[in-house]
Formats: sequence, structure tokens, C-alpha cells
Amino acid sequence: MQTAQTAPAIVLVHPQMGENIGAAARVMANFGLCDLRLVAPRDGWPNPAAETMSAGALPEHVDVTVFDAVEAAIADLNMVIATTARPRGMEKPVLGTGAAVQKLKSVAGATGLLFGAEKSGLENEAVALCDAILTYPVNARFSSLNLAQSVAAFAHAWAEEGAPEDSAALQGAPIPATKSELQNMMEHFEDELDRAGFFHPEVKKPVMIQNLRNAFTRAGWTAQEVRTFRGAIKALALGRGSARIDRPGG
Amino acid sequence: MQTAQTAPAIVLVHPQMGENIGAAARVMANFGLCDLRLVAPRDGWPNPAAETMSAGALPEHVDVTVFDAVEAAIADLNMVIATTARPRGMEKPVLGTGAAVQKLKSVAGATGLLFGAEKSGLENEAVALCDAILTYPVNARFSSLNLAQSVAAFAHAWAEEGAPEDSAALQGAPIPATKSELQNMMEHFEDELDRAGFFHPEVKKPVMIQNLRNAFTRAGWTAQEVRTFRGAIKALALGRGSARIDRPGG
Repeated sequence: MQTAQTAPAIVLVHPQMGENIGAAARVMANFGLCDLRLVAPRDGWPNPAAETMSAGALPEHVDVTVFDAVEAAIADLNMVIATTARPRGMEKPVLGTGAAVQKLKSVAGATGLLFGAEKSGLENEAVALCDAILTYPVNARFSSLNLAQSVAAFAHAWAEEGAPEDSAALQGAPIPATKSELQNMMEHFEDELDRAGFFHPEVKKPVMIQNLRNAFTRAGWTAQEVRTFRGAIKALALGRGSARIDRPGG
Repeated sequence: MQTAQTAPAIVLVHPQMGENIGAAARVMANFGLCDLRLVAPRDGWPNPAAETMSAGALPEHVDVTVFDAVEAAIADLNMVIATTARPRGMEKPVLGTGAAVQKLKSVAGATGLLFGAEKSGLENEAVALCDAILTYPVNARFSSLNLAQSVAAFAHAWAEEGAPEDSAALQGAPIPATKSELQNMMEHFEDELDRAGFFHPEVKKPVMIQNLRNAFTRAGWTAQEVRTFRGAIKALALGRGSARIDRPGG
């Protein structure tokens, strides 16, 4: 499915204030974005404060979907960019807004932007799931952006880029794997690594997994490549299992 | 004076809600803008709601100056762009955000952006004072931007453009007249036209003046050109006056 003509989903992770959700929805509608996803909003959903601040964008112009976890919220997306001001020490491309918009417009598939909670921002685990990082050129002495303003800056830049690429130009481009395909692949791989005693010492497991996920995510897998890699993991795991059985002296 | 390195002033004309002023100040500080000018804010100034919403931007990171009229607020600026979504039927350049930022960065002198009141936007008289119009690429079905979001979109785009032009590149560029030099010139001209009976019928005077001001403003006068033109008006007026005296039979 070629969905490059679709504006990206905006994913707010653990948003706190309904006012910010509503203001984000309003500016999304202003600039033609209509897919708002909320991961575990603090005050639940629906939220009257959000509706009021949306100035009519909710529910008419923007669709809201609520999820329990980031993984579920981005499962159907083919490319996701994390918006964060903080350096993460992760080996991911860090883009300015113009480059992020270009990257999203050039992909054949569904895309999304992740925004963190008002105070804490995005957790490393969420950033690790993303293909790239978008960092705004903020004033180092006053860098804390309001959540809705942060959405506004992106939404405006998206609209400003003009019409999306001609979808014909994307016909030949491979379709990236969806995030759920990629996540399933990574979990499959991690399970097998776990069984193989790879995560040692146990205390280092989270950071090892994060490093792996960063690398895998950065690689920009196509759906076909995911299938191939999963076949390879399966083959390795079976081989290891069968080796255990077949070589009693091993 | 070469002030091209300075970020533009943000001029809010008749802003209503302190919350919007504060949110605008916050996002200005986020993106390195520090000169906020208020024209007759509805609730006066200072405004506690604005300070709260600014999250510390006011008064520490953004300077606020209050004016009675737009003319006074932009008197010292050399180039001013009006932000408005509505087509005006005015012969002024209409720019996208990227082009507006480029135009502002390329000018040798002080610059500013005008934003209208929350509901009514900018009045034609204010737009007529500006060199160009900035229009955001909004969704025609949901075009009403929140005031602070509108400031956010510009401020982000300004910061995103990176470092301003090397001032050396602007050394040879002529310095545009300030808005007060231009306004004085136009008023001088209009006074003389008035005395000459040009504005006829009287009911058409406002639209005639607006057309003149649009044309003059669009011309991008340098300070030297303003002086020259004022000399010309004076000469014409004197000539007309002296003709009246010298030619008793005329």
C-alpha cells in the first residue's frame, strides 16, 4: 500500500494536560494533520479540557486513538521520528525539521512523529524504537518547549513543504517494514539471544537490548528483509537446539 | 547601523488574552527571539496570566514594550512583514515562511513581524504599513490559528534557518528607511496632497491613502531616497504656494 500522500500521525506519549492535547489537535488541523495518537494520557480520554482548547478541531477535524504503549501506537507505521531536544548518546540520525520532513515525505508508507510528556520528554526506550531524531534549534538557555508549540513547529514545517512527492516517484521504492513487524523481529531475536545466554550480566540486559534495537531500527528494514531475518533467527535457534541434541558430547 | 544579526521583533497588535502573550513569549525565547512589542493589549500590561504562561520567559528572556499604535511600534524598524491568512487585495508580495525568513535575514537593518488580534486578525491599515505579507499554508477548512501557535511557527522557522547572513555580505546593501522615516514621508506627501485638493471625493480618501501607502511601502525606500523624495514634495508644495502668490492672475 502506497500511503506517502498521508500526513504523519502525531503520537503524544504520556501527555499530561488536556489543554496541551487540545492545542496540539488544533494546530494539527490548521496544517492538515488528522491522525492523533495518545499513549496513556494522564487524565484519560475523552478529556473536556482538550476539546475546549481544540477550538473545534476535536472531534471533527482530528481523529484521536488511545493506546496503552508506544509499541502499539506505532505498530502500523513504516517510519517514526522521535522529537527530542536532549542528546541521547544513541547512534541514530539527528535531523533538523526540514530534513525530517523530507525524510517523511520520501518514504513509501505510513509515518509518525513521537512527542514526549510535558516535563520528562521521551524515554530512551521510546526513542530507541524510532528511525531518527528530530531536534529543534532551541535556545540553550531556554530550551523547554510547550508540547503543543512543539507540535506546531513540526506541523507548520510539514505543510510548508508543499505538496507531497509524486507518489509515482515512490512506486519503485521498497516499502519499509511496519513497526510491529520490526518489533516482532527484534523480540524474536532477543528471545533467542536470551535463551542462548547472550545477556550477561543480567544487569546490562536493558542497555544491550537498547543498543541492538537502535542498530536494527536505524537499518531501515523492508518487510521482505524482516521476513528473511526472522527466518535466519529461526534457523539459528533450531540449529543451536538441534546441535545440543545432536552433539551429546558438545 | 548594521543590525542584520538581530532577530526580528514580534509585534502583537491588540492582543486579547494574557495567556497567548505569555505563550508567545515562551516560544520566542525558545527560538532566540527577545523583542516583544504589544500594541494596546486589551488587559493592559503587565499581565499576570502572561507571566505564568511564559514559564519564565517573562521578564527574564524576552523584553516587552507597550505602544499605543502600530505606527509607533514599528517606527524604528527597517522592514516589517504582516502575518495574515486572509487575502487582502493589496499589491504586496505574499510570502511563504521560508521566503519571509530569507527576506528578513537579507535586509540590513531592524526587522519585525506583525500579528493581529486573536479573533479579528490585522486590520488593513496595519497591513498597509508592511513591506510584505506572510501567509501560512493552512487548511482552508480549519484555518484559524491560535496567536501563540502562529508566533511559534514563525519563530521556529527563523531559528531553523541557521545563522544569519554574514554581515559582511550586507555591507554594500543599502539600508532601508525606518518605518518612521517612511511614515513621516507619506504623511508629508498626504498633507500636501490634501492641501492641493487631491483627495476628492472626501469619502474616498481612506482607500486612496491606503493605495498610496501600499505602493510606497512596497517600493522599499532607502533612507537616502526618503530624504530625496521629501525634498521633492517640499519643492512642489513651495512651488505651488509660490505660484499662487506670484501669479495673481493664475
